[in-house]
Amino acid sequence: MKIGIVGLGLIGGSMAIDLKRKGFADEITGVESDSVNAAAALKIGLVDRILPLKECVDVSDMIILAVPVGAAVRMLPEILDMFKAEENAAGVCRRTVIDVCSTKEQLAKTAHYHPMRTHYVATHPMAGTEYSGPWAAMPGLFDGRACIICNQEESSPASVRLVEKMYDVLNMRPIYMNASSHDVHTAYVSHISHITSFALALTVLDKEKNEKHIFDLASGGFSSTVRLAKSNADMWVPIFSQNRENLLKVIDTYIDKINAFRRAIDEFDEPGIRSLIEDANRIKRIIR
Amino acid sequence: MKIGIVGLGLIGGSMAIDLKRKGFADEITGVESDSVNAAAALKIGLVDRILPLKECVDVSDMIILAVPVGAAVRMLPEILDMFKAEENAAGVCRRTVIDVCSTKEQLAKTAHYHPMRTHYVATHPMAGTEYSGPWAAMPGLFDGRACIICNQEESSPASVRLVEKMYDVLNMRPIYMNASSHDVHTAYVSHISHITSFALALTVLDKEKNEKHIFDLASGGFSSTVRLAKSNADMWVPIFSQNRENLLKVIDTYIDKINAFRRAIDEFDEPGIRSLIEDANRIKRIIR
Repeated sequence: MKIGIVGLGLIGGSMAIDLKRKGFADEITGVESDSVNAAAALKIGLVDRILPLKECVDVSDMIILAVPVGAAVRMLPEILDMFKAEENAAGVCRRTVIDVCSTKEQLAKTAHYHPMRTHYVATHPMAGTEYSGPWAAMPGLFDGRACIICNQEESSPASVRLVEKMYDVLNMRPIYMNASSHDVHTAYVSHISHITSFALALTVLDKEKNEKHIFDLASGGFSSTVRLAKSNADMWVPIFSQNRENLLKVIDTYIDKINAFRRAIDEFDEPGIRSLIEDANRIKRIIR
Repeated sequence: MKIGIVGLGLIGGSMAIDLKRKGFADEITGVESDSVNAAAALKIGLVDRILPLKECVDVSDMIILAVPVGAAVRMLPEILDMFKAEENAAGVCRRTVIDVCSTKEQLAKTAHYHPMRTHYVATHPMAGTEYSGPWAAMPGLFDGRACIICNQEESSPASVRLVEKMYDVLNMRPIYMNASSHDVHTAYVSHISHITSFALALTVLDKEKNEKHIFDLASGGFSSTVRLAKSNADMWVPIFSQNRENLLKVIDTYIDKINAFRRAIDEFDEPGIRSLIEDANRIKRIIR
């Protein structure tokens, strides 16, 4: 199988490592607009070569769009157009394109009426770290995690089977969901925790001007809560922007919860604080 | 050295393990009001025996108060009274008592005018996990972390030296600070991150009624941000209550930061979102 990966950051790079290592990909062609990242990806050995997008599409059975979701929304129709042009010449096109972005509804809308829509599969492998760039790529990143496949009824059965096989090779559990449900659920379970972490970092940096104190006093608890605040703006700006409506609702609920703590603390309401904490403790049953 | 540990939870239990293992303690006597925890601590072998408080004080060179800070504020004067009574009989008292609580100002005030104040050293080892109870105790918990020693000028040099030696055995870096600064800094760097994590858990549990979705969609990022929401109410209620004034200020700053994100997202202000994220990214330089 010849794989093209567009965007050689943490996700694209980590897929490259495991798809090659596990024998799913015979050859991996990368597309990378950042010349430093492109050189690094070649040097690390993530890809066999770097080509412009059109040439990559021409030589790949499956193209993985692993760029920030703003760029993905622009590139997906371009790639489907290339499939269309090719189909016109040869009468048939066996290529598949997938994306791996964290918001799905706008991508789904963008592709919905494209004549080559069935060649596209919308996916979201639920894995990552707070690091970015080809040097952040690592083997085993996806191992044992869930992968969401959206609106699969709009994709051809052959393309869906191919994508399921690929995620099976990466040892991911498939979960099927429509794109708009996906965006609601990830706002609750993933996107809000990035906002809370960014806000925590901003608070500490604002209140504590003495950086040595932050370093000295940060226990493991603070470090894990603030970890996501290291995440990359290129990736997260378009996610927050595209998932605006769901996120605003979740942020409002979150502010209510913070205010409930604020009120209980302000009023010396120890039973109230206890009840909030014990209620929150229910997360123990779900997340080990 | 004979050590008495009052409260055999995560912190008291983990100190027991390492102080014995590293030869600092020849004998450890525990005090534990919860009979299940007491039986477990004996069975795990954290302590050599369990005694009532008065008898534990009588046989210990150093007493470590490792109970929630509300209980510590009640017990510290009781223990200093026992020292005083003993001094009256023998004319001298060589015992030292320390606490290991997360707020220090109220403890400092409680002990300030006690005639045996110099026998007390206020400490805060900056280490922990989200688990509690004797079964959460683990070797190496304190290794390489910072330990804050507060108002050491109010303690006798002999008691301070003994405590410094003990924390050196646990491989902790001492940091000296007065009790009120301690409470300000820990509000920024430690206490607020528990509130943000509790509120995140409450938000997700509130918005996402389908627990299987939470389990399936939780990536490593969400799990690390929500980890502290598993923390124990017995420990955290008195911390929030005793550090009320500092915490209210930090919560207000935090709500401002969340609202800045909310506003930028609401107004489709992508440069604004980017600038907030890049500002938060500065935490990378401080926390590895």
